[in-house]
Amino acid sequence: MSELVYKTIGVVHSPFKEPKNVPIQATVSKGIVGTIEIYPQYIEGLKDLEGFSNIFLLYHFHLTTGCYLMVKPFLDDKLHGVFATRSPARPNKIGLSLVHLLRIENNILHVEDIDILEGTPLIDIKPYVPKFDDRKNAKIGWFEGKLDKLNETKDDGRFCKPAKS
Amino acid sequence: MSELVYKTIGVVHSPFKEPKNVPIQATVSKGIVGTIEIYPQYIEGLKDLEGFSNIFLLYHFHLTTGCYLMVKPFLDDKLHGVFATRSPARPNKIGLSLVHLLRIENNILHVEDIDILEGTPLIDIKPYVPKFDDRKNAKIGWFEGKLDKLNETKDDGRFCKPAKS
Repeated sequence: MSELVYKTIGVVHSPFKEPKNVPIQATVSKGIVGTIEIYPQYIEGLKDLEGFSNIFLLYHFHLTTGCYLMVKPFLDDKLHGVFATRSPARPNKIGLSLVHLLRIENNILHVEDIDILEGTPLIDIKPYVPKFDDRKNAKIGWFEGKLDKLNETKDDGRFCKPAKS
Repeated sequence: MSELVYKTIGVVHSPFKEPKNVPIQATVSKGIVGTIEIYPQYIEGLKDLEGFSNIFLLYHFHLTTGCYLMVKPFLDDKLHGVFATRSPARPNKIGLSLVHLLRIENNILHVEDIDILEGTPLIDIKPYVPKFDDRKNAKIGWFEGKLDKLNETKDDGRFCKPAKS
């Protein structure tokens, strides 16, 4: 099982039309609204999702080019192992964002705090449950002392192809 | 981009040799120790990961059979849309666990609180950062009132092939 094949279950619509200037985490995209379009054949799987205020989106960094084992992440000027970062230029280009679910209309999820590029293929949705997913005293390695730069740090396109002009 | 192909970057070793009786979340696997073997070509990507106490593992539910849009999860006797559950029988069989990282020796991650089956193919590792990943007041939909059953609820093998005898 060296190769795994997954299907796109939907697509992300957001105000971010190119990698440059996308907020680097959902926590700094406060109030930025987007929609997640789920393909019709998966609608049934959305039942009861509306009871959750926060959901994980798993998606494919479709514009990211290359794969680096050492990367210089947006929040630091030093190289770190890619698995110690949330960089998109990973061996498997899977992104994980925790967004705020506003409401669901048929196959459209209205979400807030989105940090995902327009047109991004969606792979999975999982409900967020603090009892499973909260570790408030976690040690945060090289991020320590860097998070005060979070608000002013944006994607600069370093991991992606240039946007078409 | 309807199909996405990913590579296995390593394999999970755990005391759980068959789906039956695997704890259903990492938070109820307290103290259960396992190892994550990263394939040698990805070792460089682990640099600085040891500074983090908690890491997300993304992996493939390799023994799960079938895909259901409505599932009866372990914690309830009612059907819910699969995207409102953490069930393994999803359109894309990707699992997400938040484990405690004890230490790293070369290509071996020693972890605690593991809720993953022996032999599970690993897809990605991401550092856990409370500022990005904590939403302690999140609304938890149908899980409300069910979490007191978490400790005594184990995988009963319902989503998997029978273990080989």
